[in-house]
Amino acid sequence: MNALVLRAQWQPRDADGAVAEGRGSSGIRVASRGSRAWREPKITLEQRADPSPAADEVVIRVRAVGICGSDLHFAERDPDGYMLYPGMVGTPVVTGHEFSGVVEAVGSEVRDLVVGDAVCAEEIAWCGECFACRSGRPNNCTRLEELGFTFDGAHAEFVATRARYCWSLAPLFEAGFPADRAFELGALVEPTAVAYIGLFVSAGGFQPGSRVGVVGAGPIGLAAIALARASGAGRILAFEVSDGRRGLARKVGADEAYDPSALGSEGIATQARESSRGKGLDVWVEASGAAGVTEQMASTLAPGGRLVLLGRGPHRVDLDPEWLIVRSASMHGSIGHSGSGAFGRVIDLMAAGRLPMADIISRRVDLKGGLALLDGTPRRESGKTIIRP
Amino acid sequence: MNALVLRAQWQPRDADGAVAEGRGSSGIRVASRGSRAWREPKITLEQRADPSPAADEVVIRVRAVGICGSDLHFAERDPDGYMLYPGMVGTPVVTGHEFSGVVEAVGSEVRDLVVGDAVCAEEIAWCGECFACRSGRPNNCTRLEELGFTFDGAHAEFVATRARYCWSLAPLFEAGFPADRAFELGALVEPTAVAYIGLFVSAGGFQPGSRVGVVGAGPIGLAAIALARASGAGRILAFEVSDGRRGLARKVGADEAYDPSALGSEGIATQARESSRGKGLDVWVEASGAAGVTEQMASTLAPGGRLVLLGRGPHRVDLDPEWLIVRSASMHGSIGHSGSGAFGRVIDLMAAGRLPMADIISRRVDLKGGLALLDGTPRRESGKTIIRP
Amino acid sequence: MNALVLRAQWQPRDADGAVAEGRGSSGIRVASRGSRAWREPKITLEQRADPSPAADEVVIRVRAVGICGSDLHFAERDPDGYMLYPGMVGTPVVTGHEFSGVVEAVGSEVRDLVVGDAVCAEEIAWCGECFACRSGRPNNCTRLEELGFTFDGAHAEFVATRARYCWSLAPLFEAGFPADRAFELGALVEPTAVAYIGLFVSAGGFQPGSRVGVVGAGPIGLAAIALARASGAGRILAFEVSDGRRGLARKVGADEAYDPSALGSEGIATQARESSRGKGLDVWVEASGAAGVTEQMASTLAPGGRLVLLGRGPHRVDLDPEWLIVRSASMHGSIGHSGSGAFGRVIDLMAAGRLPMADIISRRVDLKGGLALLDGTPRRESGKTIIRP
Amino acid sequence: MNALVLRAQWQPRDADGAVAEGRGSSGIRVASRGSRAWREPKITLEQRADPSPAADEVVIRVRAVGICGSDLHFAERDPDGYMLYPGMVGTPVVTGHEFSGVVEAVGSEVRDLVVGDAVCAEEIAWCGECFACRSGRPNNCTRLEELGFTFDGAHAEFVATRARYCWSLAPLFEAGFPADRAFELGALVEPTAVAYIGLFVSAGGFQPGSRVGVVGAGPIGLAAIALARASGAGRILAFEVSDGRRGLARKVGADEAYDPSALGSEGIATQARESSRGKGLDVWVEASGAAGVTEQMASTLAPGGRLVLLGRGPHRVDLDPEWLIVRSASMHGSIGHSGSGAFGRVIDLMAAGRLPMADIISRRVDLKGGLALLDGTPRRESGKTIIRP
Repeated sequence: MNALVLRAQWQPRDADGAVAEGRGSSGIRVASRGSRAWREPKITLEQRADPSPAADEVVIRVRAVGICGSDLHFAERDPDGYMLYPGMVGTPVVTGHEFSGVVEAVGSEVRDLVVGDAVCAEEIAWCGECFACRSGRPNNCTRLEELGFTFDGAHAEFVATRARYCWSLAPLFEAGFPADRAFELGALVEPTAVAYIGLFVSAGGFQPGSRVGVVGAGPIGLAAIALARASGAGRILAFEVSDGRRGLARKVGADEAYDPSALGSEGIATQARESSRGKGLDVWVEASGAAGVTEQMASTLAPGGRLVLLGRGPHRVDLDPEWLIVRSASMHGSIGHSGSGAFGRVIDLMAAGRLPMADIISRRVDLKGGLALLDGTPRRESGKTIIRP
Repeated sequence: MNALVLRAQWQPRDADGAVAEGRGSSGIRVASRGSRAWREPKITLEQRADPSPAADEVVIRVRAVGICGSDLHFAERDPDGYMLYPGMVGTPVVTGHEFSGVVEAVGSEVRDLVVGDAVCAEEIAWCGECFACRSGRPNNCTRLEELGFTFDGAHAEFVATRARYCWSLAPLFEAGFPADRAFELGALVEPTAVAYIGLFVSAGGFQPGSRVGVVGAGPIGLAAIALARASGAGRILAFEVSDGRRGLARKVGADEAYDPSALGSEGIATQARESSRGKGLDVWVEASGAAGVTEQMASTLAPGGRLVLLGRGPHRVDLDPEWLIVRSASMHGSIGHSGSGAFGRVIDLMAAGRLPMADIISRRVDLKGGLALLDGTPRRESGKTIIRP
Repeated sequence: MNALVLRAQWQPRDADGAVAEGRGSSGIRVASRGSRAWREPKITLEQRADPSPAADEVVIRVRAVGICGSDLHFAERDPDGYMLYPGMVGTPVVTGHEFSGVVEAVGSEVRDLVVGDAVCAEEIAWCGECFACRSGRPNNCTRLEELGFTFDGAHAEFVATRARYCWSLAPLFEAGFPADRAFELGALVEPTAVAYIGLFVSAGGFQPGSRVGVVGAGPIGLAAIALARASGAGRILAFEVSDGRRGLARKVGADEAYDPSALGSEGIATQARESSRGKGLDVWVEASGAAGVTEQMASTLAPGGRLVLLGRGPHRVDLDPEWLIVRSASMHGSIGHSGSGAFGRVIDLMAAGRLPMADIISRRVDLKGGLALLDGTPRRESGKTIIRP
Repeated sequence: MNALVLRAQWQPRDADGAVAEGRGSSGIRVASRGSRAWREPKITLEQRADPSPAADEVVIRVRAVGICGSDLHFAERDPDGYMLYPGMVGTPVVTGHEFSGVVEAVGSEVRDLVVGDAVCAEEIAWCGECFACRSGRPNNCTRLEELGFTFDGAHAEFVATRARYCWSLAPLFEAGFPADRAFELGALVEPTAVAYIGLFVSAGGFQPGSRVGVVGAGPIGLAAIALARASGAGRILAFEVSDGRRGLARKVGADEAYDPSALGSEGIATQARESSRGKGLDVWVEASGAAGVTEQMASTLAPGGRLVLLGRGPHRVDLDPEWLIVRSASMHGSIGHSGSGAFGRVIDLMAAGRLPMADIISRRVDLKGGLALLDGTPRRESGKTIIRP
């Protein structure tokens, strides 16, 4: 089969012992922190053997697969030639983890899926056995693997993964979506579920009628906006520097969309106060990973307000504890998309026509077209690029 | 001023000591159970002195006031000539408790309202001092009074109530609603807040994408449908015998609306299983007060499902505890509309255009027209009747 | 090895198609409802081949295993010779599911356990793949197996089960408990976790200082009392007909213990009102499975009170919905002991010396002694019997 | 009557417009930030007229009243002669807000209290009318007054406050506590309720068996330890520099108590990791208000862990958002002691003998003895000083 494969050289940085070397379940070498160990990364279009399913796996013919920000960071290099992506990643590995497709083969122990089923799948390969997993917290699994990071992903014609990570797309077909649209929506379930877990599981949801703000309108921020809109937000403010993305923010549900770079210093806080007539926001979602932003959000929470941290970056937050204390407010970190039935709930909301996530797709390409975007100098799109292998 | 006044004769039923006699804050005689004490009830249009505000009160010029099911029961009589309404009520009293209007006068200690403000108000006059009130549970206040029940209500040109029960309608005006529509929406906040408290406070809300069922599409059931729709329900089933109300149910958000009388015995349960492909419903709202219904709902809850009891009637529920045990499911009683900022949240959702409650208004009358509906033989409307005094 | 084996004849009752026939994972015939299909049940002490672990399993040398009420019902017969136990059970099967022991052998894929580890294990063999499992609800697994019911249990020298159901008892040893006591506590984790899931997961816990009532002081009711006492109950009322069990109830934490048979009709409700000075109870735990009890509990809930249903029986509850509505109170069914880290939390509480569950052990026997209690005419003990194989 | 009265000169700092001037309900001048406006503060023992109750007030004969850290800061001066206390405070004012006593007189509208009742009272005089109050959030009241800060407090023979802030101490007397002890416990309800609100309301409580850490063992930290111990903590770690307070920490329930100054840099984090075998803590309570502490706590949260911020100080927290994100953990600010029935719950726990807060009392004095501690150079005690006027 054709597949996009990430390759790099193992050169842990001299003065830095912070990277751990491990082995993925498929046997590849894995760095705990890619940017500290992988040099001269490159993505190429290769011929690979078609996967066959282990006993608890299915093989899926990929119909749609997104390009994620982390995929872009795989082949981007810093001045020393190291990979930009800072998280856990192995090579050589087929990239791609936001996908959907059709079950092509099933392993001997698979009970819930049959050949021909339309599915999408979680990226997180939680173990199901550790304390976190047994406590209903698969996103905090202590030995998780990641599809497209530590074992072969879905920028390919076929991908193999455990049946237990797959979710049926039948509700989309039953709701009458054409197949192409159903598979595209299926490929968007993963980033949407990240925002769903953040808003409704990690932060415990919000009272309908609440004022919600979202900083950063990449796919996850856009998903947070769409979910907030579908779930009873009274008013939604979006903050995003890209003009195109502000347009998408409005399209999926933001009532107001601002360019923070045009608002001046502390502009997010000032605007939040103004839009809320000084009351502050009930929910803030940090989806930019940018520095200097969380402070403004934390200082403008309404009494009992909740700030959800989704965006990741190397910055620190200069937090005045009084912001939280005086308002009895809280900050909630969140990671992952698994557990709590989130994938199923997102699919049901999409099937009901209440999550217009397909509106954020700005480009559709084949594997070759995907390669052009992933290797060399990636160009950021306002919206989501979908590869149809 | 003109006002609709309920009068009746105090004749506690001989063989029944179950009714307690009390005094409302305004000094009128109050029966703990109207149907056991008040005979030959009658509502008439009378001239009353305009109210003036106590120190902590405001006087409101009524712009819109609904007719509620309990209002209809006030003047209806059983074969013995007793009032049908079974709850706490005093006479003589001005009826009407779902209202909005303009502040006409303010008491000396009122700090948050000024003459000219557009407001609606809670019906429940919670004391603010008892254990329940101090625990954030005003709906369970142990000495609550009720506007339109134990002190004079809003089927009148003016009504007086404490400022602390009032909520500003400014968000509706700021959102651009014309005044007439804003006041109509304001009069609908009370019944909508009953459903809000039930779904989001008493039952703790639901995960977006959940399957929700509502039995009974009177104003409170319709509010439950509209709120579920605005707040992320994946699919909403309504059950209602009235054809007109089924139409309203669809209008405010139900995906499917069934006539239980046409479904046969156990028809609600059968349909819920079919519509959910055997999975059961995540949330059930009982808003009919009818017998034989809750059993069907309890037996078709999804794992972890929640059944909210809002409808009241004299029936018992023949509950098999296994229905709840095997599914780890729960039943939540709920009463009242106060606390948790519910009125404010509902107003914000209405202002955002996300709660089309005005669609349930089926008739607009003046006080005289209201009297025609309330006295003699009340005719049930599919939707809500609004009096504009 | 020596093992207690339940055998019976497959004779589904003629006029009753309600029982489903299935196959357990080990291949034995399983009845969905034991009392409708299994006739002439008998438990005998047999020689069995020692188990060997499948790839994801461990074999445990049993050090302590309890006799549960359901074990007693296996060999008891109704007048027609059918098994009394009404739930899912297969034969021939080694009984026993409340156990602890030492890992004797590990399968090839086991990562968290090594030979020599002291462990106890969940009885529920959740699949980890169905919607309920993936939503963090393993107790509602749609294809669960049960150790000691549908595959061989722990009334034996050895038992095999998946590693992912096992929990380390190391905290008990580190806290200095002698081995015998540690293994006894380990065997009591399972019933304690049933009460833990009911109180703290299904019902969502309670505010410290709350008034708690428990009806039925069998092992699960006693566990509810001990957990409530350890977790901040302000006052605990126990209701239990057995004098010996009332003594145990006081021992593990009840402040008051009543014999409902001595209190007269509605005596539980009357006493609850008196003990709470009319305020009602904040939490009620139904652990008796008896008829006519839940009604009294539901009618004496405090505002916002929660009733947890754990006890199972063939009765119905004649529920007045007003009991829940007027108090904004709720009823929560609960089943199972898995998920939410409950086993680990219970072990930690035991290790901290804050759960005196060992006090409920009233008898220690060997397998032969256990057989004497299980077969023929079981005699109920006040406390828990522990078999040391 | 005799009373301790705080007096100071109004001299807002020149270069600083950050202080707002207001008027307390009793008409005294109030500074929004005491340390920016009040100079040459002094506390003296004065003769004052006995208070008489307003319509909604009671007058209480004070039986026990604590000295709080903020009381000590009132008369302490910085190098420029300004008051150290940074929060809202007016002068002249009778200090003292942690108190209990006997109702001596009641206003005309008081319904729940009679002369002779033993009570304690909330310090926070919430308005009961603002959005926060009506939402069940009295601690976030937008126009709160504070007893002993903006109106006369309880370092006096008598104090007047609204009946709705008072809580009956009858449970302590009924439980058999001698009067002196009951009133002492009553005076400790206020600081205990601050910790109660933080742990069980703002942070939502914890699963029994959880590992809890508390930094700072002043009265509020000690209350957090005692509450955690009473409410099911599996293990409790305390960190406190004062040797005497570490002793008290152990006395009220800490399993381990460390001196952070002896642990070296990052010592709290290191010890927390060691004591939890690398798993981190489920709950952290910051009750020191010290700099450099919260960072260590946030970096050692278990998955899903919660950090409660109670201690206040002028520092910032240098927060790495990854600490919260990777663990799906949260930080919860908390302020106040009102609402949620906290006072009543604390009294019930004390009455049950499950909160040994009286153990923290280290000294008992009369008003004159209290003055000696409050004026001039305050000496910090390990435990709580109680004044018996």
